[in-house]
Amino acid sequence: MSDEQPQHSSDYGPPPAGCYPSPFPTLYPSTFSPDTNPNIVACFQLADQDESGFIDDKGLQRALSSINESFSMRTIHMLMYLFTSNYTRKIGPKEFTSLFNSLQSLRAIFEKFDRDRTGKIGENELNEALLSQGLVVSPTVLELLVTKFDKTLGSIMSVDYENFILCCLIVKGLTEKFKEHDNMHTGSAKFTYGEFLFNVLPFLVT
Amino acid sequence: MSDEQPQHSSDYGPPPAGCYPSPFPTLYPSTFSPDTNPNIVACFQLADQDESGFIDDKGLQRALSSINESFSMRTIHMLMYLFTSNYTRKIGPKEFTSLFNSLQSLRAIFEKFDRDRTGKIGENELNEALLSQGLVVSPTVLELLVTKFDKTLGSIMSVDYENFILCCLIVKGLTEKFKEHDNMHTGSAKFTYGEFLFNVLPFLVT
Repeated sequence: MSDEQPQHSSDYGPPPAGCYPSPFPTLYPSTFSPDTNPNIVACFQLADQDESGFIDDKGLQRALSSINESFSMRTIHMLMYLFTSNYTRKIGPKEFTSLFNSLQSLRAIFEKFDRDRTGKIGENELNEALLSQGLVVSPTVLELLVTKFDKTLGSIMSVDYENFILCCLIVKGLTEKFKEHDNMHTGSAKFTYGEFLFNVLPFLVT
Repeated sequence: MSDEQPQHSSDYGPPPAGCYPSPFPTLYPSTFSPDTNPNIVACFQLADQDESGFIDDKGLQRALSSINESFSMRTIHMLMYLFTSNYTRKIGPKEFTSLFNSLQSLRAIFEKFDRDRTGKIGENELNEALLSQGLVVSPTVLELLVTKFDKTLGSIMSVDYENFILCCLIVKGLTEKFKEHDNMHTGSAKFTYGEFLFNVLPFLVT
């Protein structure tokens, strides 16, 4: 998304009017490549009832339910944003394939660490799960993540599957935004005020 | 919260174990100062049924409802975090007074810009409302905010009162985090990876 990102002046105010491209990239029509897993194609086509080449939020929720990935509409909207970088709430074959593959791989990671098959994982397992995706967070951030994503109301802090998916995708997304602004790979990233808000706000699950 | 903030090494990995203070500041007991508006004290005491000096999330929801500030539990949790900087989900007299006063002032701002009394405001009004709080965002960020906080399902993008409160408090909170890292007031802020996640993740409304 960095190509789409506006250039801001160095104070906290907005730049002169007229120098802003749309903040959201266009969602172009796409097709499945011939080597796509036929399950993905079938799952998409089932939801694309009007054969428009796009499915909407309800269609995506239905399509994912049909492969045992049942998510709330809030999670569906977040997934749509994360895989399209825009808010049209439509998703095409290309983005659906990425989403499908990501969910399959996150499902495998979750099941690997949900050793006792309770449908939820604890703080240490979440850390291992993040590490297995190359995401190295500090103990402080880990504690924050478990606190934020624990919706299980249990006595021990733990994260269920849906919140695990959200947590991983949000940490991954924020990490990518950070790296885009850490050009010199020094471990420090610099943001103008506008860039900071523009990069961070999309990850708010509203 | 910056005093509480851990120091991170300059790569993406965690620092050596043992050098982390708790990420969440302690919520100390407090009392109302003698000049506190009696309505605030009465409102708090009504909800503090066990007279512990703290009210929990349900108590806060009840207390705010009694002054016509009805919010979902998600918003209540976000408000509790924003005014205590921790996740104990308890709030004392000191934090309640700040929250009460903030809501009163945001209510006045909302009503000023909700000129047609529809209970929602459009993009331009949101911009004016933010400006009136000293929050100057670019057109791109404004568009993003309206897109994120529009839950009205109307044909015109607009933000209702509850989402207006969330939007203002989140933008204000993120702006403060940005400024804490823009020590030289250059309009650019520098974050390590750990600082970036630690500062941003609390604003995720999960």
